[in-house]
Amino acid sequence: MAFESKIRPIEWIDGYSRMVDQTVIPYEYKFINITKGDDMFHAIRDMIVRGAPAIGIAGAHGIVLYAQEGMGKYNDINAFKSWLLEKCDYMATSRPTAVNLMWACSEQKKVIENSKSDINGLIKELTAKAIEIEKDDIERCKKIGDYGAEVVPKGATILTHCNAGALATGGYGTALGVVRSAYAKDNTIKVFADETRPRQQGARLTTFELVMDNIPVTLITDGMCSYFMNKGMIDMVVVGADRIAANGDAANKIGTYTVAIAAKYHNIPFYVAAPLSTIDTSISSGKEIPIEERSHEEVTHINGKRICAEGVNIINPGFDVTPHELIAGIITEKGILRPDYNKSIAEVFLK
Amino acid sequence: MAFESKIRPIEWIDGYSRMVDQTVIPYEYKFINITKGDDMFHAIRDMIVRGAPAIGIAGAHGIVLYAQEGMGKYNDINAFKSWLLEKCDYMATSRPTAVNLMWACSEQKKVIENSKSDINGLIKELTAKAIEIEKDDIERCKKIGDYGAEVVPKGATILTHCNAGALATGGYGTALGVVRSAYAKDNTIKVFADETRPRQQGARLTTFELVMDNIPVTLITDGMCSYFMNKGMIDMVVVGADRIAANGDAANKIGTYTVAIAAKYHNIPFYVAAPLSTIDTSISSGKEIPIEERSHEEVTHINGKRICAEGVNIINPGFDVTPHELIAGIITEKGILRPDYNKSIAEVFLK
Repeated sequence: MAFESKIRPIEWIDGYSRMVDQTVIPYEYKFINITKGDDMFHAIRDMIVRGAPAIGIAGAHGIVLYAQEGMGKYNDINAFKSWLLEKCDYMATSRPTAVNLMWACSEQKKVIENSKSDINGLIKELTAKAIEIEKDDIERCKKIGDYGAEVVPKGATILTHCNAGALATGGYGTALGVVRSAYAKDNTIKVFADETRPRQQGARLTTFELVMDNIPVTLITDGMCSYFMNKGMIDMVVVGADRIAANGDAANKIGTYTVAIAAKYHNIPFYVAAPLSTIDTSISSGKEIPIEERSHEEVTHINGKRICAEGVNIINPGFDVTPHELIAGIITEKGILRPDYNKSIAEVFLK
Repeated sequence: MAFESKIRPIEWIDGYSRMVDQTVIPYEYKFINITKGDDMFHAIRDMIVRGAPAIGIAGAHGIVLYAQEGMGKYNDINAFKSWLLEKCDYMATSRPTAVNLMWACSEQKKVIENSKSDINGLIKELTAKAIEIEKDDIERCKKIGDYGAEVVPKGATILTHCNAGALATGGYGTALGVVRSAYAKDNTIKVFADETRPRQQGARLTTFELVMDNIPVTLITDGMCSYFMNKGMIDMVVVGADRIAANGDAANKIGTYTVAIAAKYHNIPFYVAAPLSTIDTSISSGKEIPIEERSHEEVTHINGKRICAEGVNIINPGFDVTPHELIAGIITEKGILRPDYNKSIAEVFLK
């Protein structure tokens, strides 16, 4: 469908990476130019750029930035390559859960390992790969969106959690890609966005990008989902994913699992929208997905102000795993995978 | 059990009501003296005092305050009574969901209707009733706590939502009364407190009062409950209630229903702790409980700062109804009611 989003969160410009600073949305919409590899590492870790596909793109850009820095330091192509391969491994550690980052860094490693060029030529190859990953991501999201739109009922209200939107990807979104493609066909559809504590990506980012694209959005707090499901006001749930195991278990932002349980209780279909690069067939179930433990201040403070008593304990898992039995379908760029996921996931990788 | 809480949220002092200002916790712990009936109406509506039993006490205090004001205006006892009965009805509308407020106002109406005294004497009777409601509430909470403690496993971690604590009652708590009584027997028990967006009573009040009473508490965001249940880190859920129907359906702070569904999915017992005055046998199911729609700013702003894009829609129900089939037991001052609730609730009112 021909939905054109106004949002382009990360883009390779001549020699540097330009990204929307997602830490200041919805108060400001400003761009940051990242020119050094270490700055990209920190931009990923500090979530200036976030969302599994977007940080994959950022990682690929970051390797080009390191390569540009290394050009002055090395004359020998092999020493250069071995230094840069280490930087690829390092960049992949900037966020531990999202598999897209590891995938993008390993794509750049393949370019390095297979290149027959000199240093200058290799940098050109890495730049081409980074731009390819970026463009491919947008195309992939549009395919995901179009496949997903086929299962959105007419006039549906779609609940989503966190931000699997244009801001989380090259520029169209996975879960919100489904929303965009559905909206292009039927402008009576609506979105309910979970606030998504602790970091409030739903409140800050999802409402922002949907308002910017003129798609009707209602913000709710995370605990409210069941209330609206019970009232018959939610027709389907679509969320993104940070990593999906071979059996369909899907890691996504903390709170997703609770929404999936609530959807099951109300017989509302719960879909995961993600590119195939999110699927990690090397792990058999969600139990093997490492869950990032994040700063306690994300829970105890909002906008820099403490919200709870001193002396309270905090545990802050960044993600949870929704077991495959709660997932109605995994919407990918090659179509919607259905249970049994062990089978449908294995098959899609053979195509 | 002999747990002594440091917290006394509302108390009748000589001629006025002294309350803890719950809107500034956890930043400040300060008292406000309420000397006028209208000020009490606003204190309830603006949630300076909140929690179903506490606002019942506040309502009873408020009628005494009106009576004191009316003393100068009326010489005729019948005119005085008829004016004051109207004030009782008015006070009962300051919050629509909690039945305790209506109950307390109707208790004061009975005092007015049955009194044989002059104006001065009637004010003394209303004062005595207000103090009785206050003291009875603390005793009732201790009984609820002691009954509830019997079903808390040794070393248990208890999840709670919102604040059904000392701050919500005369001074011991219903859900947190269970925690206090259990802790008095077994100081290895722990609490997980849901933040409870939008107003964050869990973060602001529950962590505050448990830290003040030295009971270990971990703050989590509302969406995290299922994550910790799945890890086996939650042994039971205990929440309060604002109104319970004859079939056991229980209205409580928005988000409770989601926790109850998550508990069911993980086979974790979900208890409601509430005095019998919370049970409204005049309504057959939770469908008849009016749900207060609250200010949109509670969702869009935190500590006065906007957290989402302009142009977003908001719906802000203050409560939800947990259906009886998700409730393992209703812990009252006369013991724990079990399903079938139509039967056990009817029976307890015959005792």
